[in-house]
Amino acid sequence: MRSTWGRAIQYSLFGESHGPAIGITIHHLPAGFRPDLDKLKAAMARRKPGTGVYATKRSEKDEFEIVSGFYQEALTGAPLTALFRNEDTRSSDYESLKRFPRPSHADFSANEKYHGFNDPRGSGHFSGRLTAPLVFAGALAAQILESEHGIRILGHVAQVGDIFDAGIDEMASQVTQANQMALAQKEMPFFSDEAIEQAKTMLAKAHEEGDSVGGSIEIGVTGLPVGWGDPVFEGIESLLGQLLFSVPAVKAVEFGAGTAFAGMRGSKSNDPWRMEDDKVVSETNHSGGINGGITNGMPMRLKVTFRPASSIALTQQTVDLREHVNAELSVTGRHDPTIVVRAVPVVEAVTAIGLLEAKANAAELLGQFQKNK
Amino acid sequence: MRSTWGRAIQYSLFGESHGPAIGITIHHLPAGFRPDLDKLKAAMARRKPGTGVYATKRSEKDEFEIVSGFYQEALTGAPLTALFRNEDTRSSDYESLKRFPRPSHADFSANEKYHGFNDPRGSGHFSGRLTAPLVFAGALAAQILESEHGIRILGHVAQVGDIFDAGIDEMASQVTQANQMALAQKEMPFFSDEAIEQAKTMLAKAHEEGDSVGGSIEIGVTGLPVGWGDPVFEGIESLLGQLLFSVPAVKAVEFGAGTAFAGMRGSKSNDPWRMEDDKVVSETNHSGGINGGITNGMPMRLKVTFRPASSIALTQQTVDLREHVNAELSVTGRHDPTIVVRAVPVVEAVTAIGLLEAKANAAELLGQFQKNK
Amino acid sequence: MRSTWGRAIQYSLFGESHGPAIGITIHHLPAGFRPDLDKLKAAMARRKPGTGVYATKRSEKDEFEIVSGFYQEALTGAPLTALFRNEDTRSSDYESLKRFPRPSHADFSANEKYHGFNDPRGSGHFSGRLTAPLVFAGALAAQILESEHGIRILGHVAQVGDIFDAGIDEMASQVTQANQMALAQKEMPFFSDEAIEQAKTMLAKAHEEGDSVGGSIEIGVTGLPVGWGDPVFEGIESLLGQLLFSVPAVKAVEFGAGTAFAGMRGSKSNDPWRMEDDKVVSETNHSGGINGGITNGMPMRLKVTFRPASSIALTQQTVDLREHVNAELSVTGRHDPTIVVRAVPVVEAVTAIGLLEAKANAAELLGQFQKNK
Amino acid sequence: MRSTWGRAIQYSLFGESHGPAIGITIHHLPAGFRPDLDKLKAAMARRKPGTGVYATKRSEKDEFEIVSGFYQEALTGAPLTALFRNEDTRSSDYESLKRFPRPSHADFSANEKYHGFNDPRGSGHFSGRLTAPLVFAGALAAQILESEHGIRILGHVAQVGDIFDAGIDEMASQVTQANQMALAQKEMPFFSDEAIEQAKTMLAKAHEEGDSVGGSIEIGVTGLPVGWGDPVFEGIESLLGQLLFSVPAVKAVEFGAGTAFAGMRGSKSNDPWRMEDDKVVSETNHSGGINGGITNGMPMRLKVTFRPASSIALTQQTVDLREHVNAELSVTGRHDPTIVVRAVPVVEAVTAIGLLEAKANAAELLGQFQKNK
Repeated sequence: MRSTWGRAIQYSLFGESHGPAIGITIHHLPAGFRPDLDKLKAAMARRKPGTGVYATKRSEKDEFEIVSGFYQEALTGAPLTALFRNEDTRSSDYESLKRFPRPSHADFSANEKYHGFNDPRGSGHFSGRLTAPLVFAGALAAQILESEHGIRILGHVAQVGDIFDAGIDEMASQVTQANQMALAQKEMPFFSDEAIEQAKTMLAKAHEEGDSVGGSIEIGVTGLPVGWGDPVFEGIESLLGQLLFSVPAVKAVEFGAGTAFAGMRGSKSNDPWRMEDDKVVSETNHSGGINGGITNGMPMRLKVTFRPASSIALTQQTVDLREHVNAELSVTGRHDPTIVVRAVPVVEAVTAIGLLEAKANAAELLGQFQKNK
Repeated sequence: MRSTWGRAIQYSLFGESHGPAIGITIHHLPAGFRPDLDKLKAAMARRKPGTGVYATKRSEKDEFEIVSGFYQEALTGAPLTALFRNEDTRSSDYESLKRFPRPSHADFSANEKYHGFNDPRGSGHFSGRLTAPLVFAGALAAQILESEHGIRILGHVAQVGDIFDAGIDEMASQVTQANQMALAQKEMPFFSDEAIEQAKTMLAKAHEEGDSVGGSIEIGVTGLPVGWGDPVFEGIESLLGQLLFSVPAVKAVEFGAGTAFAGMRGSKSNDPWRMEDDKVVSETNHSGGINGGITNGMPMRLKVTFRPASSIALTQQTVDLREHVNAELSVTGRHDPTIVVRAVPVVEAVTAIGLLEAKANAAELLGQFQKNK
Repeated sequence: MRSTWGRAIQYSLFGESHGPAIGITIHHLPAGFRPDLDKLKAAMARRKPGTGVYATKRSEKDEFEIVSGFYQEALTGAPLTALFRNEDTRSSDYESLKRFPRPSHADFSANEKYHGFNDPRGSGHFSGRLTAPLVFAGALAAQILESEHGIRILGHVAQVGDIFDAGIDEMASQVTQANQMALAQKEMPFFSDEAIEQAKTMLAKAHEEGDSVGGSIEIGVTGLPVGWGDPVFEGIESLLGQLLFSVPAVKAVEFGAGTAFAGMRGSKSNDPWRMEDDKVVSETNHSGGINGGITNGMPMRLKVTFRPASSIALTQQTVDLREHVNAELSVTGRHDPTIVVRAVPVVEAVTAIGLLEAKANAAELLGQFQKNK
Repeated sequence: MRSTWGRAIQYSLFGESHGPAIGITIHHLPAGFRPDLDKLKAAMARRKPGTGVYATKRSEKDEFEIVSGFYQEALTGAPLTALFRNEDTRSSDYESLKRFPRPSHADFSANEKYHGFNDPRGSGHFSGRLTAPLVFAGALAAQILESEHGIRILGHVAQVGDIFDAGIDEMASQVTQANQMALAQKEMPFFSDEAIEQAKTMLAKAHEEGDSVGGSIEIGVTGLPVGWGDPVFEGIESLLGQLLFSVPAVKAVEFGAGTAFAGMRGSKSNDPWRMEDDKVVSETNHSGGINGGITNGMPMRLKVTFRPASSIALTQQTVDLREHVNAELSVTGRHDPTIVVRAVPVVEAVTAIGLLEAKANAAELLGQFQKNK
């Protein structure tokens, strides 16, 4: 398994859902940075199951222990490792999944790939629980980006089933500290309180019916400087594309106007440049802040679509891998009717990870022309 | 600039549109493979401007010279380098673009990133011309995939402006050798001849109006074995996501049901398993052949959306980077009204590159349990 | 800090000597392999301080916990993480080293690099303690190599100060299971018992004088197939060169006849080929089993030289980094008079890590011509 | 084959000795740097066969064409590719080497690895000719290092057979511009003119006898700042160790006192710190400027040992790979009696490549705390 990412800054993710622990190691972080651990925990808390219908019943402990790279309240420059112990792991739920794979879940493909040796408990390394260390890493990356550049990243649920939230506009005017705080306090990360109420009703019904619901998350980013990203394979969209598709259940990624570009004319989709206070800005921002893979100084906007959770209580058709016959399956256990509500901090996190990498790459290039001590 | 990709097999892309040459080096290809050069040239020809309204007027020579890694009609195992000489480069068209950046083009962000030292002629390293070596590499990768596994990759234009082609179905039944040959012969790579006629009319009008048009390309892949792809950062969607967003002008990538998942229920979107001739298949294929980032043996389906070409003849608003004032720009030169028609072999190519990497990774893992001579 | 290594199989090392824990994560190990944990612990035990004069006084606990990648006695294919808790850490010994850097130690350069934020306790991430997870990883790699290919790796102390052990001959006839077991039982890993007695006396004297002693370690490897290693930057010598120089205090690395080649003639140093039981072998083996960076099927032989430990009890000249004046330093604390005795399993470990990488690379290439399911 | 190196700056080497061309692509060089091409050609000229007994008879053309990344006399930031056309390739000399492999040459191992598909002409990708693009890349790296930091790299032949040159002292006082110019003018790169005369006589005799001679090259580097290099796998010795062992025929690498450390005491080998003009320096420099893998601001010193060229005219024992019997071989063709004389600029080049990588890594880390526009 390749659970590593990044060249300038490297992330090494490990752990299985019901093994002793999961965690992440981050290499090449800047020595001397003082992370705000309370803020980090607040980001983690948003990923945790809350109250209400959409909550997983597992009481996940997202408490972490930093076992290296942190000394006297600052980063040491050595690899930073955060460890999350697994608890409350009711493994008996999962034993039969090697024999009766869940439709649209990794059960079958993983079983084939690893010749049956993968840990099936709680989906093992494929579990959504692995997003906890991702949020840890991304929240840390976001702190560095914010403290150095004033970069701000805000996500919300754009759609869940047939319920839609108000969108982030082209200039990302919704991306404010006030909104960051407000959304963190809400039952669900929507701008519209009405949408929250509608979503609660709809999700309660889906849950009752033993079903799950898809959705989408939209992210806005402000404060990006011009010139981050490298052409071709390491453009911002490529870096983030790889990371966003790494989040379990993501099946579509769009930047700026996204799929709507297909029906547009260039005269409409092009973003005219203009001078504003001696700074180059664009009048519209269909590009979502990226041209040729490189940031152009305008706000970034992206959207990811999640498939409905594949684990549902309804009886489904599957196969018996031992007897090689068709079979039926009803997944018991603790499942959310939707992923998108909890996934907002995850999508924010991988966005921050990608942008910090772009920053480090740009710094390295720039640094080649600076006296380095 | 980071114009390299891949871990098991490595691609190193180089060149600027109007410099002496462009090309690609591919490392770690299998010694002894005998590429079909005629087939390779046929793939390249599909990327070249054809006849008709949508043709770029530049008579691009896509002739390549293989300068290393090829001996006595077979790959030697040493790095394979293909060189494409640039000719017919009317550089005078582009000199002013450093001063008056085209809206939504890389002109501005590249100029800032490289402090004005980037080669502006024909967009330099950002030029669509760099997709020629990508098609070379991808067509070679596709030959290896086909000869080893019978994997077949077929792309078509799904949408250009308001014209739509018939889609590839979930089982990718359109992905046949007959269709590959048929689409290569057509004026444009649509299944529907009616759509071609409509597109020609629409594109002629857009061209006449000095405008450009967006669109989307759909890819189907058959013959994939179970178990390719690695979890988290190197799942198939992550590998391909990075590559697909590297194609100039791509702004959205979808797998399987893509953005439609947002409004679906799990009971509808899940693909039930069943036994068929003692093989595990799924009854539907909304997943597009990938679960948990790993191939499940079903056909793969993906779609990419292209923004309209940013270079248009219509007068546009821009800035004068020298005088720091607003300005107007009318791009002369040779431009297609749409990118999607020529981009089909490019999207096929990067799909093949990503799948060959997944194959090599799977082989490496498998190989660890095999006597290696 | 970049404490990661490997492309096919990736190692991510973390931890500081006196922080909560150190450890290693290994990515892309083969699912289903059943490691022999007792054998692994035996390898670790050889790195631990033993009895006698050369022992560090710190009672290091090299007990590890495998927190991921291991289930039902087999590797799962997910990242394998081994965690080593730090105990018995007398940090008070080290606080002043940021002010008075030890001569020839990383104290000064690390302090400058990390702007004083590095963890100085026990040398932090630069500590020899970090070789414990390396031995874990290497011992595991060695088990895979042995079980798949019958590859055997044996190291011994070739020299410590003015005491020399009998060398490993060109055909590595000393590399046997019997010798592996015998050396593990001895007080020190020398072939010659006489050398052990001499070394003990010499080391006791050095220790009494508050001094340390350099030395060298020789490694022999048998069972290597032909064709591992890639040309230029990933030849066997390059892969191992990088790894061997990563072991703290290593200042020279030699393969085959090593530095002696400088005074040789080709007619003498060339290893004539001959047929033996229909197998190609070489009559001599000055090459140490590697030609052009690629294994040739003959045994491998290498030697690494360690500088004397830089921490010594004798009073030394240093500087006061706070007052910017010259100063004197007498390092107290627990220090071995020599590193080489404990370092033998470390050098064996990184040799195994490098060879497993070469194996995976070769498998990947080979796998490209095999039906992969 | 893996002929790529580097993470921050990436090198992609390609070509076979008697194919159409060889070359190198360098990714992520700083836009705007203006290389001195005359100086670059002078470095290349030192690698070329000169006059006198030690000259290869092939009139190698080391003329290069820069086909990308260079515009208006400056680097563009896009990948830089230099192309070297192969000429004067008498391929008939080499055809039989697939059947009768040269002792201690890559013929046998490469033939096995590539199943006979490797290009055997002039040793293909294993040829010493591939060091021409390495010298190009390294000479460019050296220019960047010198212009930014005043770093100076000087190499000389320390030993060839039984002839020794005066060594570079611990403070590298020989590393001056004057000496760089002087050595470039000499028939052979020795400090001692007497050694040159002795070497000429000795080499003439060896050549006459159809034999070859080994040797060693010593490098001194001045001007290095404190803090380059990363711990463990990316220490300076590890980076350079990998690169130096990539040079054909290198079998040993030593830093600072090198193998002599084995017999030393710490009290002798440790380099005492002292203040000099408010700067921290060390009184001695056995460490060769590196502690814990990180530069300490003192000059760097390293030595590499080359085996005698394996291609010799004398009749040798080999095997017939077709008939599987023992055979005799007398290599005809054009061969130097020693490699070390021409290899000095190659060793300087890879040293520069490694140091530029360390610089880029340090810049990236440092850049994380600087406003990046």
